[in-house]
Amino acid sequence: MGNFIFHGCDTTELAREFGTPLYVVSEDEITDRIRTVKSCFDEKYERCRTHFASKAFLTRDMLRILMDEGLGLDVVSGGELYLARRMNFPVERIAFHGNSKTVREISEGLEYGVGKFVCDSLGEISLIDEMARAHDVRANILIRVNPGVEGNTHRHMLTSGGRTKFGLSPEAVKNAMPACMKMANVSISGFHFHVGSQLMDASAHLAAVDVLLELIREARSEVGFEAWILDMGGGFGVPYTASDRPIPIEGFIGAMVKRAEEFCALNGIKRPDLIIEPGRYIVGPSGITLYTVCSVKEVPGVTLYAGVDGGYPDNPRPALYEAVYDAVVANKYGEPADRKVTIAGKCCESGDIVIRDIALPPVERGDVIAVLCTGAYNYSMANNYNKTPIPAIVAIKDGCPRISVRRQTYAELYACDPPPDSKAPSVQAV
Amino acid sequence: MGNFIFHGCDTTELAREFGTPLYVVSEDEITDRIRTVKSCFDEKYERCRTHFASKAFLTRDMLRILMDEGLGLDVVSGGELYLARRMNFPVERIAFHGNSKTVREISEGLEYGVGKFVCDSLGEISLIDEMARAHDVRANILIRVNPGVEGNTHRHMLTSGGRTKFGLSPEAVKNAMPACMKMANVSISGFHFHVGSQLMDASAHLAAVDVLLELIREARSEVGFEAWILDMGGGFGVPYTASDRPIPIEGFIGAMVKRAEEFCALNGIKRPDLIIEPGRYIVGPSGITLYTVCSVKEVPGVTLYAGVDGGYPDNPRPALYEAVYDAVVANKYGEPADRKVTIAGKCCESGDIVIRDIALPPVERGDVIAVLCTGAYNYSMANNYNKTPIPAIVAIKDGCPRISVRRQTYAELYACDPPPDSKAPSVQAV
Repeated sequence: MGNFIFHGCDTTELAREFGTPLYVVSEDEITDRIRTVKSCFDEKYERCRTHFASKAFLTRDMLRILMDEGLGLDVVSGGELYLARRMNFPVERIAFHGNSKTVREISEGLEYGVGKFVCDSLGEISLIDEMARAHDVRANILIRVNPGVEGNTHRHMLTSGGRTKFGLSPEAVKNAMPACMKMANVSISGFHFHVGSQLMDASAHLAAVDVLLELIREARSEVGFEAWILDMGGGFGVPYTASDRPIPIEGFIGAMVKRAEEFCALNGIKRPDLIIEPGRYIVGPSGITLYTVCSVKEVPGVTLYAGVDGGYPDNPRPALYEAVYDAVVANKYGEPADRKVTIAGKCCESGDIVIRDIALPPVERGDVIAVLCTGAYNYSMANNYNKTPIPAIVAIKDGCPRISVRRQTYAELYACDPPPDSKAPSVQAV
Repeated sequence: MGNFIFHGCDTTELAREFGTPLYVVSEDEITDRIRTVKSCFDEKYERCRTHFASKAFLTRDMLRILMDEGLGLDVVSGGELYLARRMNFPVERIAFHGNSKTVREISEGLEYGVGKFVCDSLGEISLIDEMARAHDVRANILIRVNPGVEGNTHRHMLTSGGRTKFGLSPEAVKNAMPACMKMANVSISGFHFHVGSQLMDASAHLAAVDVLLELIREARSEVGFEAWILDMGGGFGVPYTASDRPIPIEGFIGAMVKRAEEFCALNGIKRPDLIIEPGRYIVGPSGITLYTVCSVKEVPGVTLYAGVDGGYPDNPRPALYEAVYDAVVANKYGEPADRKVTIAGKCCESGDIVIRDIALPPVERGDVIAVLCTGAYNYSMANNYNKTPIPAIVAIKDGCPRISVRRQTYAELYACDPPPDSKAPSVQAV
């Protein structure tokens, strides 16, 4: 019985001190998880490098941790690249992804000199070649391959298979290779795949690795292309609730590396450098969200609705993916969870339900609810629907909490909609 | 053949001048649609008032139009109320909705003196009573009723029926009335319902009106409560594509008013003042979104993917609701639509498909695509996923385009995450 403690901090105290809704992330947990990944990949095998998928969670403090730990970075937009540049993130360790890069973004990537562009179509490679010529540089390219393998996850999180917008089929890649190899200002370094998100076991990953290795073999023998990088994406699942039971991360990684090494040995090919791109695995379980209960309403025979002060704007994943989370009443931690409660978000939107029918202690107005495992894709998908300010992020390190990203103000909701005499952007020191 | 003209403006020129992605709204169309609603409601019947549901689209310019046209305003948050206060929107015409208002929001509503609070639970009414006492005011209250009627729409847009978080059952309302009527600092003015969004005919609305009228009759006879306001919500559908065929707005409105008048006459009750709350109906067809095609990729036997420079961040509705839109190639308007094209958004997210399998003329990089009927819930649900800046809004009036809301900058994406020595909010003149 008592208050819920998260990495040494009393969450009820955090709610009181910093207000709610509040994102809380443990920098210690993030660092631990990065080191776990590195220990079974970067440090265990030669020529293996972990990139963090910044779309999962990108802040100035997160970039600082990644730089301290020596990870690489995946960016998917000019906006993500912008912060990496401002923070002087080592450019050679940045990969620029995206199925529909704008001319401006390609230009920004070339100017900064990103380590690799991950390309989705022949047209994109040819555009980068043309633009690299104008910049008088040579760009490294990975081609994104759709291995045609479908992981067992929500259809919005599937990134491979028949109906995804991502990548080229192995056949299309082989057809495109001769043209790509003739381009003077791009250098094709290898291939990339990403099989899907939040996967519980390695079966889809391994099936995809097999397809890619076969492509590498055929590209070598049929068109004389030597792939020296294979980027195996991310998608390593985390336990949002007790019913999610992902295999340990070393199960995904070790099995993929082993498969690559065996195949290459058997076929007399030098095993390509390997990359993985975890995002959710590193930050998901490292974060929680704190809410205050604003309203309680019993609907007899249905549920007890506990309305909180956040919801869809800080976490659209339940509405988008039917994502299920676990939660505790932070100020009643350990009390018998004998009520069926639906935690309702505050948006005027029926889909704004944070968690439906979870067992909790009796909930009252003023209680603090901690929703668990919200470190990935919550802050990064946050929005101002219903003109709701984006919550602050409190970072915990060595048991000490501090503001990492401050709460948005009402005025900032309208920063781009100022009175008519001041429509120009204000200069901001960032 | 030629370029697509929207309310007197060549959309290809708008894309060139203001950049893409770009929201474009016609203020003339908004005004026309407001006047259509008023002519068959506010001006046709006595004691009838239209409120605009600001959650659909809220900007400084939109508030100016609403004030010019004399409409009321629904707000659902402190952030929406903030702009109304800054613009001196007439306070008596503001209704404050929401199932989970925070103490701060209730306090802001009381301070500004909003015309009505629309309340979702007995606990909320009792809290407002208590807070109004501290403010030494008396708050007008509408009680939100769940009429138990299910409209035929996406489950996320259903706001009535067994599993919605909104409202109290008629039975629960009657049970709560005696307690509410004894509260000294609230005055219960009547009832509110909202049956769902984007409905094509009036059947669900009329079924709900019947339930509410019966509640009014019973509350009068059983607990002596005289309802003098009935707020009938919104939900009047618009044609996103040719297969959406909503009845004309006067069909919804006229039928509901008639039902209320007949019932009241029959039962010897004074017909309550009526309110409706259109949002999408007024702004949806008044807006379009312009994109530039960044990449084109043929997947044989599947589709032609045309990647654009926006998508989920400026319009999450396809991912959220499987919402379907229509589009044209703005610079090839009228050319034969003989290709099956999938317009893919730029996010690293499989669900980021703007329109799947639409017939368009052959699409090339650099083409401008205009997605139609994006005036409602696109800008208001916009977000910075993948650190994508929110597009500008260009408003057209009398054929002249101007910036209404400017484009967000990269720096503004990190406005709340400045370097460590400047975490305090900057003071902004808004």
